Amino acid sequence: MTSLFRARDAGLACGRTETGVRNSITDVPGVRVGHRTLNHGGIRTGVTAIVPPASNAYREKPVAAVHVLNGFGKSAGLVQIEELGTIETPLLLTNTLAVGTCCTALVRHAIGANPDIGRETATVNPVVLECNDGFLNDIQALAVTEADATAALDAASADFVSGAVGAGCGMSAFGFKGGIGTSSRRIALDDESFHLGVLVLANFGRAGDLRLPDGTLVRPPSAVDGETTEKGSVIIVMATDIPLGDRQLKRVIRRAGAGLARLGSFWGHGSGDIALGFTTANTVLHDERAALIDQRVLNEDRIDLLFEAMADATQEAVLDALVAAGPMTGRNGHHRPGLADTLIQLRSTGTPRS
Amino acid sequence: MTSLFRARDAGLACGRTETGVRNSITDVPGVRVGHRTLNHGGIRTGVTAIVPPASNAYREKPVAAVHVLNGFGKSAGLVQIEELGTIETPLLLTNTLAVGTCCTALVRHAIGANPDIGRETATVNPVVLECNDGFLNDIQALAVTEADATAALDAASADFVSGAVGAGCGMSAFGFKGGIGTSSRRIALDDESFHLGVLVLANFGRAGDLRLPDGTLVRPPSAVDGETTEKGSVIIVMATDIPLGDRQLKRVIRRAGAGLARLGSFWGHGSGDIALGFTTANTVLHDERAALIDQRVLNEDRIDLLFEAMADATQEAVLDALVAAGPMTGRNGHHRPGLADTLIQLRSTGTPRS
Amino acid sequence: MTSLFRARDAGLACGRTETGVRNSITDVPGVRVGHRTLNHGGIRTGVTAIVPPASNAYREKPVAAVHVLNGFGKSAGLVQIEELGTIETPLLLTNTLAVGTCCTALVRHAIGANPDIGRETATVNPVVLECNDGFLNDIQALAVTEADATAALDAASADFVSGAVGAGCGMSAFGFKGGIGTSSRRIALDDESFHLGVLVLANFGRAGDLRLPDGTLVRPPSAVDGETTEKGSVIIVMATDIPLGDRQLKRVIRRAGAGLARLGSFWGHGSGDIALGFTTANTVLHDERAALIDQRVLNEDRIDLLFEAMADATQEAVLDALVAAGPMTGRNGHHRPGLADTLIQLRSTGTPRS
Amino acid sequence: MTSLFRARDAGLACGRTETGVRNSITDVPGVRVGHRTLNHGGIRTGVTAIVPPASNAYREKPVAAVHVLNGFGKSAGLVQIEELGTIETPLLLTNTLAVGTCCTALVRHAIGANPDIGRETATVNPVVLECNDGFLNDIQALAVTEADATAALDAASADFVSGAVGAGCGMSAFGFKGGIGTSSRRIALDDESFHLGVLVLANFGRAGDLRLPDGTLVRPPSAVDGETTEKGSVIIVMATDIPLGDRQLKRVIRRAGAGLARLGSFWGHGSGDIALGFTTANTVLHDERAALIDQRVLNEDRIDLLFEAMADATQEAVLDALVAAGPMTGRNGHHRPGLADTLIQLRSTGTPRS
Repeated sequence: MTSLFRARDAGLACGRTETGVRNSITDVPGVRVGHRTLNHGGIRTGVTAIVPPASNAYREKPVAAVHVLNGFGKSAGLVQIEELGTIETPLLLTNTLAVGTCCTALVRHAIGANPDIGRETATVNPVVLECNDGFLNDIQALAVTEADATAALDAASADFVSGAVGAGCGMSAFGFKGGIGTSSRRIALDDESFHLGVLVLANFGRAGDLRLPDGTLVRPPSAVDGETTEKGSVIIVMATDIPLGDRQLKRVIRRAGAGLARLGSFWGHGSGDIALGFTTANTVLHDERAALIDQRVLNEDRIDLLFEAMADATQEAVLDALVAAGPMTGRNGHHRPGLADTLIQLRSTGTPRS
Repeated sequence: MTSLFRARDAGLACGRTETGVRNSITDVPGVRVGHRTLNHGGIRTGVTAIVPPASNAYREKPVAAVHVLNGFGKSAGLVQIEELGTIETPLLLTNTLAVGTCCTALVRHAIGANPDIGRETATVNPVVLECNDGFLNDIQALAVTEADATAALDAASADFVSGAVGAGCGMSAFGFKGGIGTSSRRIALDDESFHLGVLVLANFGRAGDLRLPDGTLVRPPSAVDGETTEKGSVIIVMATDIPLGDRQLKRVIRRAGAGLARLGSFWGHGSGDIALGFTTANTVLHDERAALIDQRVLNEDRIDLLFEAMADATQEAVLDALVAAGPMTGRNGHHRPGLADTLIQLRSTGTPRS
Repeated sequence: MTSLFRARDAGLACGRTETGVRNSITDVPGVRVGHRTLNHGGIRTGVTAIVPPASNAYREKPVAAVHVLNGFGKSAGLVQIEELGTIETPLLLTNTLAVGTCCTALVRHAIGANPDIGRETATVNPVVLECNDGFLNDIQALAVTEADATAALDAASADFVSGAVGAGCGMSAFGFKGGIGTSSRRIALDDESFHLGVLVLANFGRAGDLRLPDGTLVRPPSAVDGETTEKGSVIIVMATDIPLGDRQLKRVIRRAGAGLARLGSFWGHGSGDIALGFTTANTVLHDERAALIDQRVLNEDRIDLLFEAMADATQEAVLDALVAAGPMTGRNGHHRPGLADTLIQLRSTGTPRS
Repeated sequence: MTSLFRARDAGLACGRTETGVRNSITDVPGVRVGHRTLNHGGIRTGVTAIVPPASNAYREKPVAAVHVLNGFGKSAGLVQIEELGTIETPLLLTNTLAVGTCCTALVRHAIGANPDIGRETATVNPVVLECNDGFLNDIQALAVTEADATAALDAASADFVSGAVGAGCGMSAFGFKGGIGTSSRRIALDDESFHLGVLVLANFGRAGDLRLPDGTLVRPPSAVDGETTEKGSVIIVMATDIPLGDRQLKRVIRRAGAGLARLGSFWGHGSGDIALGFTTANTVLHDERAALIDQRVLNEDRIDLLFEAMADATQEAVLDALVAAGPMTGRNGHHRPGLADTLIQLRSTGTPRS
């Protein structure tokens, strides 16, 4: 069901700048991703974990930011990120109705590593991001368990696959099978080399609106009746090892919207489109003793490098998800074709439509 | 442990305007409140439900707004309220680590009444608000179950008690025992009579900072060692039958901050201070067919009436919580005195004033 | 210097939906636009006025909203729009350093029509939006006078030209001559017909990034040395006769960003990208006596129609500005080519680059 | 008309923490304040300048933040502060209708010191903050000139007076004569000593609502007919030499609202209540060459020290303005009594308390 076929294997590169070696969010040193996929009966869902480098994110909180592109969504933990500019757990992605369960799993996970939580020290802010996979998945079954969330966390690795895996198992985008995709860009600052990586959970876009980087519009082979609205959602997670302040991070991740718009999305009403970014170069220590702390931040005159990388990597990560995810049939026989098949057909018949 | 003793019984009235008959959020017609209290062993916690009038909030979504006074908090569901200006479930209040469980309970509750959720129609946005009761409660025990959340919903009634009940069971404020408090104001517009009601979950404020309406500072009898920071949180829920748009609601609930400041709070760093308001006079129908809808809103030149009522009712609701909640000893022998006892002592010995 | 040549005359239509008769913001009944152009010596600047239907906007305030796409800008009056959801003057567009002068001109204009301002009633919130035309214009000369602002207001008409006129006189975009552009879409709701119109002041985008609706990248004939950053700004004004609340307006105008992104912009660091929208269907009366007011708003399930129209009309309005504005040489011999010339050449040689 | 009589001379100290030597915003090393007062005929207005330490704020931009408590106001320059977290001009305070003139004056002032503005480098973002002094001042006369603004800038000094001076000349608060007030707090971090200083332009609050630090309500001697609403506005400027990031600054200045609320304000509908803060410890160099910059920021666990100082200093700065400003009669015989006179009378006759 999943695939190692990537966007660039299908000729779908975005922008002018160089990618990282893996062309993945895990090009950012120390960042790891893990999946737990549930695919049986009418169940097409799962959990994807994105884990920052520190062995204990609660003790070393990465500086972070969120930006809500369109807030028709149920993600948890955003209020505190907005206030404090940090995250303190790994990030979990899952289906909309599993947010509560994944929150509780993250709470237990944090307590396991930090037995002082809620006793000698503060509580913990679990961050769970979601899309609605109800077209292919029997979302009412509430199939995701706390053990599934833990399994995704335990599976975290620098090597992971894109496509219909983890939280992406049952997702749809532009009338095709959607899912998890990733891409990265290498950024040189003075004489140092850094990376900006993006991972998306792609579940948005109307059938008929998808535009490839060369301008071609791509429609799924058969129109799905009555599906005229953008109902899905898309989660965009950005990681970087460039030293940034939280305001700078927020400015960078806002450019995810440009990447989505190039693909043909106008951030539809029913879509919860949320971007979250963190840097591995600035952490806030939970047990900091000094009153004043030194931080490195970016000379903001250079931030266009990151804006462009963010737009490019977001656009490509979505295409990566679409290309990697094969066709899938889910609950009640609901079906989504794979973009890769359509591209092959397009190219053999040579009928690009604009 | 709970009490029918109210703020005004202790002589603590706030502001110049008239209260409703119950001096309660349930003076707003149709609004109901239910508690589920857990008080055994080291457990001092619970759930409080606030239920809007419509029998099915998912089908008739009250117009609503949120305002984050200080975002060191983990409440769920705020993103969608901000985007769409509505709520679509009852509101649950609980402890910080029970948010996930209460979210799942609200999801099941909504599916029970709306079997099309996640199948033929959209998903649902559960709204759960929280404070950290870890001083008195063994919060790591994750004692709250989905059944407890459902019990709070089922208990909802126009008659309910203030104090150490429901989500308020283990809360603390200004070094005293805190909890649930409520107050309302009657507002006349043209020739019609309306109500604005407030319910608070009070768990904030440093020992030594509490100021009564007459300016008196009140300190708990024994200082708790090392407790110099404001770590708690306070949730302020406002309901009204005045027709308001969501921007107007947001402006009104922002004035909760004035009520808290009059009490001596400066909205401390570690406190998740969140206000949520809804009107029962404007609902958005889930199955609306018309393209254009008529709404009544307030002539904003009159909104100072509501601002003042909001500040007054918030201030009084917190005092109501403090007065109603008796002294309590919780996990590990941690103890909070009751404000009522301290007031009695103060008045018999004469009023110190700083 | 200006032109009646429009985007569609150059074959540059955007999206699938029908335009209004004029394909202009003035397809919204009652909306008028006026220009005052300053073009002499090293001066290439001016003022453009957008006037809502009511004869006195201070007495009948259109419901309005703003959205800041990128806030590296100096526009005035946005704070009050955000708080109250209304505008109370016509809108003036001009160059960055003329904002103060245009504010004062609007103040005098409002006092002229409302002698009670600042005496028996409140003051007035002038709204002035700006871009930096310093490449072609000697912006330090502060050439714009209050009389110029008044002249733009007096010139307001349903008929106006696009291109290098008014505030657009000295603007640049994507390395080409920029300026004022407009476009509209017709929207049917139930059996009624409405319009959404957009006017842009286009002064943004890096040379080499402009993408036409068919995906073609268009570069200006000669690269301008060292011009690698996006420094300009773009102002997007939306008017509609669809009844909307201010939150709904804000959601709609946010989609201007999608239109800009399709053109190749990622909302660069140095660009003040600001969208402002108003509806002519809902006004707040300055002298309202009733406590409660009836408003019509949109059934938000239909709002994707407006989102799509906003993205399409923004994209096309920018192309309209670029096509209508001919080549121009300004201060110190600084030069911008016209897009129309480049398109003619491209089509005759048939060398689209991607 | 002005006075060296300060809040503490009237026994009105706020909070527990120590003040700076001057008890003034100019306790922050290098910060200077200048006034230009216009007081003739029906004119009661002026300009107050707050100047950061650097000789050229455009070249060394102080890190800054704004927070809008209630946005019924017309201040200029806030959008860019929100985006970039810096200011790049001194701050001017004036009356509402003089904002445009003061913007232009700041533009000329910046060009004078930086002839590359708008030519070889970017434009400049003038920051002008305002209140409506129309009760005492003939605001329609637009009496403030660019020369007045320059005079205020030129007068800047560490020594300046509070009361009915500069922008404060014609302001009113709580039915009394208002104006300019200031206060500071000393803050120790590790072994170093820092200051947080506040300057307010106080023009807010309903007659009858003013509450002194001991809880006493103070009413002006004669009620002014029909004056039941809060129409004024208040500007709160905070300066500090504590190293803070812009998000931290924003959190600190938000606590201005607590200071205002303690005084009896609920941030009325018609009042433009805006807080702006900057640190002298972090500057962004306009001509920075390095890609990465080192910044010191606060260990946020200590931020309650600043929150409390901000609330205390804001409360006291307003009382300082009220105490320093004597009684004044302005246009059309409109009159405001001075708080100092009322306090003397109160104390001689005994303290009424409600």
